[in-house]
Amino acid sequence: MRKTITMAAATAGHAEGGTPLNAFDNALLAAGIGNINLIKVSSIVPPEVTLTDLPKIKPGALIPTAYAAITSEVPGETVAAAVGYALPDDPAKPGVIMEFHGVADRETAEQVTERMLEEAFRVRGEVVREMRVVAVEHTVRHVGCALAAVTLLTDEDLV
Amino acid sequence: MRKTITMAAATAGHAEGGTPLNAFDNALLAAGIGNINLIKVSSIVPPEVTLTDLPKIKPGALIPTAYAAITSEVPGETVAAAVGYALPDDPAKPGVIMEFHGVADRETAEQVTERMLEEAFRVRGEVVREMRVVAVEHTVRHVGCALAAVTLLTDEDLV
Amino acid sequence: MRKTITMAAATAGHAEGGTPLNAFDNALLAAGIGNINLIKVSSIVPPEVTLTDLPKIKPGALIPTAYAAITSEVPGETVAAAVGYALPDDPAKPGVIMEFHGVADRETAEQVTERMLEEAFRVRGEVVREMRVVAVEHTVRHVGCALAAVTLLTDEDLV
Repeated sequence: MRKTITMAAATAGHAEGGTPLNAFDNALLAAGIGNINLIKVSSIVPPEVTLTDLPKIKPGALIPTAYAAITSEVPGETVAAAVGYALPDDPAKPGVIMEFHGVADRETAEQVTERMLEEAFRVRGEVVREMRVVAVEHTVRHVGCALAAVTLLTDEDLV
Repeated sequence: MRKTITMAAATAGHAEGGTPLNAFDNALLAAGIGNINLIKVSSIVPPEVTLTDLPKIKPGALIPTAYAAITSEVPGETVAAAVGYALPDDPAKPGVIMEFHGVADRETAEQVTERMLEEAFRVRGEVVREMRVVAVEHTVRHVGCALAAVTLLTDEDLV
Repeated sequence: MRKTITMAAATAGHAEGGTPLNAFDNALLAAGIGNINLIKVSSIVPPEVTLTDLPKIKPGALIPTAYAAITSEVPGETVAAAVGYALPDDPAKPGVIMEFHGVADRETAEQVTERMLEEAFRVRGEVVREMRVVAVEHTVRHVGCALAAVTLLTDEDLV
């Protein structure tokens, strides 16, 4: 908490598993964040943060993360998860992260997330300088999970 | 986590939004905590902590927060959220935070929260020195959210 | 978050309460973690961590914890919660924590958790050096809770 976030990185993954929790674990592994401790946050990009590709994070690190996930045990069902961030014109102001999960396809997940970000900026009276949405869908064979996440990182979280 | 909590501040808010997540975001903004990262905790006031009005918190700060929230998409429905804390006679002992959310009015939310705090102190064998409950209700137009929170703060979280 | 986890300790508890949240609070007290702030994590044992019995933790400390809990208001119903960890042969690699909760008995909770840990290691291509599952069941009288947790600790969290 005392830590100062300097980077944010978005990622997504989907997978099958033997149980819903294993499907979630496997989706985290597919997204490249399966060996860290996610701490769920709600959901702001601090000012002056660099948006990067997902770096290699220390195993077991405690990482504040905004994420959306859905597991399903309905064969043939398509589920989707998305996260998106929008950054304001003024870099001294914070950005916003929105999450979506549901029985939906990837395109729907993206569109809903974009609309949520637009509303979040409208109510704050801010102009969007940059917006990015990461979404994934999964069509269930037995037990499946779709997951999307924005990790909030410091230099010392990296390998 | 290494951080030492020195202050706790309760707040509440309610709002409409275009989606449940936007209603939640708007309720956070109404409560004055819409631009920070809430980390949900379960739910103790550390000893020797000062209870204050909500101060101005750094945008994007990672703030351990005990909170209750409810969103509803049922027009005309009244939903409520409450948080309360009780502090013991002995300032070296921790206080307790309880949360409530439900399809209820504000008065009910307050009463339930008070009763939960009383039980929490009874089972701990402690006497309540001070109790405070913050509650809010929202009658839904389209999509609404009621939210109440106790933030746990350090000096460096403040602007 | 900057904190470096050096210990992990598993525990479990079950209790009745006047409300579901009080039953949860009472189960936390029964498990010896009722006076700390749990921060839910998902769910890795960092490398080089010592597994210990639950030590005495500072009241109000913010403790990253993987936990499973279930409350029930169905008299006569038996609910169970379990957490388990598995550690790899290579101590430089992280371990995995899995959680289970459900309407089930303790033995079922243990077995499901073991199978989840086995899958987690199979997909990671790691060999289990050590596995431990802690489970608890509760048969509800009025309102009951079963809870199991793995706390992730540093030296400074201890009394």
